[in-house]
Amino acid sequence: MTEAPAAPARRGRPGYDQESLLAVAVRVFNERGYDGTSMEDLSRTLGITKSAIYYHVRSKEELLGLAIDRALDGLSAVVAEVQASDERAVDRLEQLVRGSVKVLVERLPFVTLLLRVRGNTQVERDALARRRELDHVVTDLVKQAVAEGDLRDDIDPAVTARLVFGTVNSLVEWYRPGGGMSAEELADAVCALLFDGLRRDGQRPGQGPS
Amino acid sequence: MTEAPAAPARRGRPGYDQESLLAVAVRVFNERGYDGTSMEDLSRTLGITKSAIYYHVRSKEELLGLAIDRALDGLSAVVAEVQASDERAVDRLEQLVRGSVKVLVERLPFVTLLLRVRGNTQVERDALARRRELDHVVTDLVKQAVAEGDLRDDIDPAVTARLVFGTVNSLVEWYRPGGGMSAEELADAVCALLFDGLRRDGQRPGQGPS
Repeated sequence: MTEAPAAPARRGRPGYDQESLLAVAVRVFNERGYDGTSMEDLSRTLGITKSAIYYHVRSKEELLGLAIDRALDGLSAVVAEVQASDERAVDRLEQLVRGSVKVLVERLPFVTLLLRVRGNTQVERDALARRRELDHVVTDLVKQAVAEGDLRDDIDPAVTARLVFGTVNSLVEWYRPGGGMSAEELADAVCALLFDGLRRDGQRPGQGPS
Repeated sequence: MTEAPAAPARRGRPGYDQESLLAVAVRVFNERGYDGTSMEDLSRTLGITKSAIYYHVRSKEELLGLAIDRALDGLSAVVAEVQASDERAVDRLEQLVRGSVKVLVERLPFVTLLLRVRGNTQVERDALARRRELDHVVTDLVKQAVAEGDLRDDIDPAVTARLVFGTVNSLVEWYRPGGGMSAEELADAVCALLFDGLRRDGQRPGQGPS
């Protein structure tokens, strides 16, 4: 059990502001699941009383909302930037993938939590609705890039959109910042795979040596 | 609450054998999380008493083990087949991706459960260890395909392996059998994306019309 450092008792509870409290809460939610975590659990992990937590937030659901907004606001900002651009759709799609990888790396615990949300509360249902809006934007971008002749037309654009963000989202399962691969290198690898494929240039099925 | 149909009381509890009981349990685990599901919850959903459940399995953890084995045995069989083949590594990798997509589609609830396992129990830790073994096989296959000159050499093979199976595993988040896309079509789309990329053949960055 973690003891919070001793500090003046009133206003600004010992050792935590809303930001640092949120960081710990999100870590616990990711470890035990949001549904499986009680305010009692948070109080024990934080080493402060439940009423000290309620000094900063009204409820467990408010913590979830704050955390999820951190992830979604980051992703929405990338989408807004991409939508304001007048580049070709394929380039905007790549920009969207790179921007999303960057948000994922910088806000990893928040994005991880977002991706595990199941829709049991209003906050979760709102988050799922915002994720679906983002999916539509991606699908539209894929459609446009196909129409502009830059992307292959033999995969359904909605499927392409899901595969692309399936790949990006799967990074939360294994990528850890500081593990020797920068956000930029990670984005390069993801874009190389998604846009140009793993096969060596010029090697197509049946054309390999042998 | 579901009522089980009336049936003789001894041996073979009403309405369920181990298989159908397992199917319901896995659905509940996927909905509420394994940790968040009690035998009491299962008993209510199944509409049978806890002792009727214990007639078929010794514990909740045994149900988890049976479910996870269903997923892992399917994937291990694909790996064994691929390892016994003497084709080029790139072709075996594609075979592995196709086989994994097929297992995922055919055993979707079991694979979904496997991918959500966090390592809180011995059964879960064993499952994670078996998943890691599979990761090594995939990484080795990628290394060999790079050495044979068939795959690009500018992405670390371990990263490639994680991206490839990140893409495959992300299918559990959205693919539903019977939704208009067969396992074969899904595997085609995944392999097209992973091996040849989304960009139209001959279009490389800077080469597109504009």
